[in-house]
Amino acid sequence: MSSAAPTIYPQAAIDKMIAAIQFNDQGLVAAIAQQRGTGEVLMMAWMDRDAVAETMRTGRVCYWSRSRQAPWRKGDTSGHIQELVDLRVDCDGDTLLVEVEQTGVACHTGRHNCFFRAIRNGELETIAAVEADMTAVGKE
Amino acid sequence: MSSAAPTIYPQAAIDKMIAAIQFNDQGLVAAIAQQRGTGEVLMMAWMDRDAVAETMRTGRVCYWSRSRQAPWRKGDTSGHIQELVDLRVDCDGDTLLVEVEQTGVACHTGRHNCFFRAIRNGELETIAAVEADMTAVGKE
Repeated sequence: MSSAAPTIYPQAAIDKMIAAIQFNDQGLVAAIAQQRGTGEVLMMAWMDRDAVAETMRTGRVCYWSRSRQAPWRKGDTSGHIQELVDLRVDCDGDTLLVEVEQTGVACHTGRHNCFFRAIRNGELETIAAVEADMTAVGKE
Repeated sequence: MSSAAPTIYPQAAIDKMIAAIQFNDQGLVAAIAQQRGTGEVLMMAWMDRDAVAETMRTGRVCYWSRSRQAPWRKGDTSGHIQELVDLRVDCDGDTLLVEVEQTGVACHTGRHNCFFRAIRNGELETIAAVEADMTAVGKE
């Protein structure tokens, strides 16, 4: 897929987006990352206010890691970054759809997306192959 | 889009899927509904254990309404149902990707999907038109 410059926004637009978001009682909003062009749903994670702002300011997708309770600039450790294409907020303001250009893979298991388990022939099976060795990376 | 029979699962498969899900402290799992074929992300909502089981048993997508604190069989009021195509669970077990065949529109505003607000020319704009009159339906 051809690569374009990531989308960035001026502060006034960032403020307008953040004003439209209904952060939950933990200060977080759900964020669904979708690959530009293919429509593949890559992952779902959470953003706090700073992650939304940093994502929009820099064009590099950032989350809030609930497990580490820390900002999570995706790909800083692994190189598997997400560049921002477009950002949409839903009717209730509690979910973002983040259109991205994924470099490498989205999942910490090395699969291209996180949704690789489904029922096949009555069993819960792994339906996607590991594409990248993430053993040295750890879970971001 | 051609319509096929919805996917249904035997109880043993339902049990295996539910065993793979990490329900949160409210007993819920995030569920992303994606239209089969087009890849359009329609909405994000929540399922409890019963909603997952009912969805898989009947092929009609059901959620848990947090606002009403009640089961929510999507489309029972509006007719805008979702039929199950495939169900995937993510690496952490805390998000489902629900591939559906959407009848009508997914959003209670009458738009085809819930993600209709984005920054355009520096302003938060509505980027999708209302396709269905939902005023008589209310929010499901």
